[in-house]
Amino acid sequence: MDDRHFMNMALDLAVKGQGLTSPNPMVGAVVVKDGQVVGTGYHEAAGKAHAEVNALEDAGRLARGADLYVTLEPCNHTGRTPPCTRRILAAGIRRVIAAMKDPNPGVAGGGAEFLKQQGVEVTLGVGEDRARKLNEAFIKYVRTGCPFVIAKCAATLDGRIATRTGDSRWVTGPAARQFVHRLRHAVDAIMVGINTVRSDDPSLTTRLDSGQGRDAVRVVLDTHLSISPQARILRQRSAAQTIVVVGGVPAATKKAAVEKTGARVIAVELKNNLIDMQALMERLGALELTSLLIEGGSRVLASAFAAAVVDKVLFFYAPKILGGDDGVPICSGPGPERMSACVAVTDVSVQRFENDVLIEGYVEKS
Amino acid sequence: MDDRHFMNMALDLAVKGQGLTSPNPMVGAVVVKDGQVVGTGYHEAAGKAHAEVNALEDAGRLARGADLYVTLEPCNHTGRTPPCTRRILAAGIRRVIAAMKDPNPGVAGGGAEFLKQQGVEVTLGVGEDRARKLNEAFIKYVRTGCPFVIAKCAATLDGRIATRTGDSRWVTGPAARQFVHRLRHAVDAIMVGINTVRSDDPSLTTRLDSGQGRDAVRVVLDTHLSISPQARILRQRSAAQTIVVVGGVPAATKKAAVEKTGARVIAVELKNNLIDMQALMERLGALELTSLLIEGGSRVLASAFAAAVVDKVLFFYAPKILGGDDGVPICSGPGPERMSACVAVTDVSVQRFENDVLIEGYVEKS
Repeated sequence: MDDRHFMNMALDLAVKGQGLTSPNPMVGAVVVKDGQVVGTGYHEAAGKAHAEVNALEDAGRLARGADLYVTLEPCNHTGRTPPCTRRILAAGIRRVIAAMKDPNPGVAGGGAEFLKQQGVEVTLGVGEDRARKLNEAFIKYVRTGCPFVIAKCAATLDGRIATRTGDSRWVTGPAARQFVHRLRHAVDAIMVGINTVRSDDPSLTTRLDSGQGRDAVRVVLDTHLSISPQARILRQRSAAQTIVVVGGVPAATKKAAVEKTGARVIAVELKNNLIDMQALMERLGALELTSLLIEGGSRVLASAFAAAVVDKVLFFYAPKILGGDDGVPICSGPGPERMSACVAVTDVSVQRFENDVLIEGYVEKS
Repeated sequence: MDDRHFMNMALDLAVKGQGLTSPNPMVGAVVVKDGQVVGTGYHEAAGKAHAEVNALEDAGRLARGADLYVTLEPCNHTGRTPPCTRRILAAGIRRVIAAMKDPNPGVAGGGAEFLKQQGVEVTLGVGEDRARKLNEAFIKYVRTGCPFVIAKCAATLDGRIATRTGDSRWVTGPAARQFVHRLRHAVDAIMVGINTVRSDDPSLTTRLDSGQGRDAVRVVLDTHLSISPQARILRQRSAAQTIVVVGGVPAATKKAAVEKTGARVIAVELKNNLIDMQALMERLGALELTSLLIEGGSRVLASAFAAAVVDKVLFFYAPKILGGDDGVPICSGPGPERMSACVAVTDVSVQRFENDVLIEGYVEKS
């Protein structure tokens, strides 16, 4: 059994916190003594104990002289909980293996350094790629104050997300749609444009087959506050709030009608007559929304790409061909003159969901 | 060593004839005696010896009492060459293992039946899936008299094959483009529309890295015979002909100018003011073109899908996003009202070419 093996175990544990730890990262920890796992734990939810503490509690007195595998550098500061480094020392851990440094610019390196000074052996970087991917949203958020943005669409092979009549039910099959519900569970917020609300009247709730889903905050871009107070997104039972983003000052009566449904109306400045995406991301970040899934439509996606706020793309292609250009495109609005001026996507990976194909990648930052 | 092993060897041999056997199928054969390969052969080119004959020649006297693995049922009729069944009997083969029956409605079952009657043990269907895929074009052609049609495109993730200025160089990278050259080598004909000729001035020749490529016949859809006699497709050195397809009777002087370049002008009836795709396929089939690769553009692809002449799709997606709807779409023209009325694609498979993704599938025939 090597370091990588136990770190993978810790990473698997970390994933259990998905959707529940924000604005904290997902973290898992494993205590190993003489090659045997003697304690495990993970960060279950924001405000609850850190992974290291849970694993050390689980190990009890067996932690003395043991190794601690943790997916993120232990904290050395007092936040909602006391510093984990103190707890590690008190437990008598001999060696700490951490997958990655704390990406938070304010605290980076603190925990590892402190532990070394106290005579604990520290190894950094085991399983780092997986750990970074797991917390890609958290990493972006602590560095920029803006949410990690995922642009998702589901299109026919010829690139249409709906027919000319707006019919989009369904483009992809059940497996791909269930994956999207898992995504909704994992992110802090979901965003669509007012056109999507009008044509699809979506609920944007999380409906997992297992029934364990958590709803994300719903964000609607609605420059002129034209949303119907009857829209499903404003009327459903959900523990998560709906935020309607307007440009400029909306009519007071309309605003009151929308707010009466429980939704929040926030105003963001305009840029070229559209909501300024960068400014919006800063606002959403200030609300501690660390990740945002943009689910369309064409104008919102194009606007997000144009403003360079997208970090990751998840494009589903369904095994069907519309065969015309009158359906709804993936992006709308003006594109560049040259193919070389396209938004570049890197680290491409492909997944199958029955006969649907998901192409995933990261937007190359210039 | 089992039947499947030797059949795979025969199938690998068959592939060597790719691009050279049309209008015949690709066929490979292996002679096995006491578990040892004693002879191999494949159909090298139309008009040359059949695979069985080559393998039996290679085995010589060792063929007596041996097993013959062949990827297609041996012929029992005299075509350009004498019947293989006679040659098999003369060689003293004990058992024949064929991957699939001859799909030609005129001859199906003849060879296997005859061999059985003569006391040869016959096994059919070993490796049949691979054999059918290998000769999917031949199978369609002998059954319908029309070419097997492959629709290919290369698009951005948001479904654009060129920018608004027509820039399409390059959407995909070198590995994907090289795959297309291998495809061109494998098919009998390549088709594009006049708009593609005008905007890209393509040569549509086969340019393999290995330099061994064979050019396919080039077909240009040009209803009003508006092609420039200076177009590269008419002017280059190539052993393969260019066919310009017009609708109705073209102006005699223009026709003469095009024909002077060595190209052939053929007239096909119109249907809704566009060249009738089904009628065109019958004409191309009559010219012994068993397979056709449609390389675009949007109108030709849409027209082919609308006429239900497409058998297979090869859609490449490059890791880039145009971000607007003013680029050239994959298909143009009217689409259906309902998503459920899309052309259905089945047997989907995915391949990577560096960061480009190829989605391959077959059009579901209604």
